[in-house]
Amino acid sequence: MDGFDGERLQKQMDFCREIDQEKEVFRQSFLCSGSRRENDAEHAWHMAIMAFLLDEYANEKVDVLKTIKMLLIHDIVEIDAGDTYAYDVEGLKTQAEREQKAAERIFGILPEDQAKAMHELFEEFEAGESPEARFAKALDNVQPIMLNDASEGRDWKEKGVKLSWAIERQQRTAKGSKVLWEEFSKPLLQRNIDRGNIEGDISLEDF
Amino acid sequence: MDGFDGERLQKQMDFCREIDQEKEVFRQSFLCSGSRRENDAEHAWHMAIMAFLLDEYANEKVDVLKTIKMLLIHDIVEIDAGDTYAYDVEGLKTQAEREQKAAERIFGILPEDQAKAMHELFEEFEAGESPEARFAKALDNVQPIMLNDASEGRDWKEKGVKLSWAIERQQRTAKGSKVLWEEFSKPLLQRNIDRGNIEGDISLEDF
Repeated sequence: MDGFDGERLQKQMDFCREIDQEKEVFRQSFLCSGSRRENDAEHAWHMAIMAFLLDEYANEKVDVLKTIKMLLIHDIVEIDAGDTYAYDVEGLKTQAEREQKAAERIFGILPEDQAKAMHELFEEFEAGESPEARFAKALDNVQPIMLNDASEGRDWKEKGVKLSWAIERQQRTAKGSKVLWEEFSKPLLQRNIDRGNIEGDISLEDF
Repeated sequence: MDGFDGERLQKQMDFCREIDQEKEVFRQSFLCSGSRRENDAEHAWHMAIMAFLLDEYANEKVDVLKTIKMLLIHDIVEIDAGDTYAYDVEGLKTQAEREQKAAERIFGILPEDQAKAMHELFEEFEAGESPEARFAKALDNVQPIMLNDASEGRDWKEKGVKLSWAIERQQRTAKGSKVLWEEFSKPLLQRNIDRGNIEGDISLEDF
């Protein structure tokens, strides 16, 4: 075909095949039905839909396409680096370094322009400072809370999660969406404290 | 919060919980690793990434956000209607009716404006006439071919797929992307005929 660059398409399809492995990286959250844990690809799909249904609640106007792209690709690094559980203190120390290395290898499969764009999108998400990154990170908190609540707090109970562990991370939701923090996550955390699924070692009213 | 509509958010979150079930609707294609079949949520995630990496190959310029939204939501109806295998003659007869009913129930969980938007997006995909729908449908053919090839043609072999069955559906890829049909799908089908994974009962050279 005219002007067609076979090497470019090859690199793109190699990348598309490579990321298939994200479907085999499992998270801690259970599906709403409680039947099994969720994998990274499913998690990203779920949040990408939430991004365009809930963008009216972002604190600042967001570019929805950019937010969705971030959500779709932000866990690709876990193919190499694995999922680091939100309360895994040791794992969290090395997470950034492991994920940086993974980003170089995996995004590096793409043609140079796309590798660069993906890397920048990933960095922007990680930095969490742009309106899109803030909103994406809010959804990255809201989605697992929704699943944990629907699956009767199974993951929280198994890990013995206390509110004092969860609060720092969960409060960050407000940076991206005050509405989702106040009107969704907070009441839902309280309900799970009341049900004994989360240990209420501190009071949610203080936040 | 000022001007906040609690009922609206409730409907949106009910929908977000409802679609979690898409993670338990399985397709026929195996993951690239061959370890198990793929589910609808993973399939949609994979294609949404492919949409923004490969849009340069769409026959017509496409609105990438619209294409991604279509790909993300087009299989939600299968929560009620189930996955209809591409070569299931009986299932294909009732597919449209089953999926229409499912669309009404599931999209109907959303607030009216969003239910309408989702329904229209789904209809547009099904009709396959807009540039975005054509490109989305092309990816909906390309992605499973990529998986079937990577998993050594396991699904094709198990079903005894012949090229004469596959060709009608696969040729439609060219409506959305001549490049992906000529430069990706066609050579890949030929390779799997050569390997005996697809029965070459007709000649690919005629297409």
